[in-house]
Amino acid sequence: MCELFGMNAAQATDVNHSLALLRPRGGEIGPHADGWGVAFYESRAARIFKEPVPAAESRCLAFISEYDFKSTIVIDHIRKANPSRIGRASANTHPFEREFAGRSWVFAHNGKLARQRGDTRPAPRRFNPIGETDSEKAFCLLLDAIAARGGSADLAPGRLVEAIEPVVRQLTKRGEFNFMLSNGEHLIAHAHTRLHALHRTCAEEGCPQDVFLLATTPLTDEPWSALPPGTLLVLTRGMEVVGHTMNLPAAA
Amino acid sequence: MCELFGMNAAQATDVNHSLALLRPRGGEIGPHADGWGVAFYESRAARIFKEPVPAAESRCLAFISEYDFKSTIVIDHIRKANPSRIGRASANTHPFEREFAGRSWVFAHNGKLARQRGDTRPAPRRFNPIGETDSEKAFCLLLDAIAARGGSADLAPGRLVEAIEPVVRQLTKRGEFNFMLSNGEHLIAHAHTRLHALHRTCAEEGCPQDVFLLATTPLTDEPWSALPPGTLLVLTRGMEVVGHTMNLPAAA
Repeated sequence: MCELFGMNAAQATDVNHSLALLRPRGGEIGPHADGWGVAFYESRAARIFKEPVPAAESRCLAFISEYDFKSTIVIDHIRKANPSRIGRASANTHPFEREFAGRSWVFAHNGKLARQRGDTRPAPRRFNPIGETDSEKAFCLLLDAIAARGGSADLAPGRLVEAIEPVVRQLTKRGEFNFMLSNGEHLIAHAHTRLHALHRTCAEEGCPQDVFLLATTPLTDEPWSALPPGTLLVLTRGMEVVGHTMNLPAAA
Repeated sequence: MCELFGMNAAQATDVNHSLALLRPRGGEIGPHADGWGVAFYESRAARIFKEPVPAAESRCLAFISEYDFKSTIVIDHIRKANPSRIGRASANTHPFEREFAGRSWVFAHNGKLARQRGDTRPAPRRFNPIGETDSEKAFCLLLDAIAARGGSADLAPGRLVEAIEPVVRQLTKRGEFNFMLSNGEHLIAHAHTRLHALHRTCAEEGCPQDVFLLATTPLTDEPWSALPPGTLLVLTRGMEVVGHTMNLPAAA
């Protein structure tokens, strides 16, 4: 099982805070020793750092934690390879990235999806996995569904949810499918078996802005709420713009 | 003007040797102060490190130079922004990457391509630029041409050259178009105005393997040869498998 973290804010926010919280979980206090990845955005372009080594031991992660990166959208992932026959390799390390309609799209997944008969797709489709993970294959299916709706990068949040919902329903039948997906404008999250949310609002004086945090495991003592299974969220500029709960069968 | 470097070998070879040679050219002894990028392959997946800061000052580049990366294909780029209105940004920093047919494709360019009337393409095509450079746009045109030939990742070297030659001819009319393109199996290079080659062969005892090096500026005292304008090379496992010289008009 992996750890997944997402952040969305109206104004560019420190990327490193989440790294400091997540880093010990990758092979030190947690069992997630097979890789780590960090994605954040500079306008339409994602910057991704990832390595197929334990986060807690990574010199590279320690190094970038000292950088002063800021972004409105961050996706972090700490990987425990599952099944173990799919090994440590860059190609199997989250987050994954593809370009569609002139934007970087980024995806990270928590859970395990079983193979099914008929999994051998008529290759190649528009988006194809480079590595061996169920996760990257799921990402390609989501993007194929979005691309099939048309070519516009300006797909409205509601239209994005409509496009991916059938794929999400299908894949949840195969196992656990908690994920985060972003195009630099929106952060889309699906809570299936394990995802928590924390909305830091600006009621207090001195609070700079709304910030939305998502994590498989709450990372602070604040009142995180467990999202109901089947929740599809779209966050934009630190606010929930779509919150839609599908009626899903129990996880496989 | 930028500096471009490529390496292709039969067996995985040290990535860092080229970095040590190139690093001083990025803002120390050279004027190429707007960014740097390194791409190499692990099987079908590219690993890319890049930053929109001078290579000579980059802590990140210094850091990865200490890593023990090895690969059969390497593409390095040191950027001087040109025109200067297109600024320092990750999205404008080479090498660029796209997935096609289950492989990472990587591209870096030396030169400047002028805009033309009719440059506004009916958007979006399959591959679209995320940043603002003429280089990334050219990469997308090359991949569109390759994808139009069919979906196979196993495009033979001769077929790849056939697919891209019309695009290369077209773009050389707009300016200087020295580039490197790879899919992890082949390294394709085009010499337009400035590209040198060095083939280290295995005649001598103790020489481990054939290594092919390409660079805008020779990096060592060995006998590099200047490639004739219009040369399209395909290198595979350290050997030249296609060497084709187009008859091009003089550079614009």
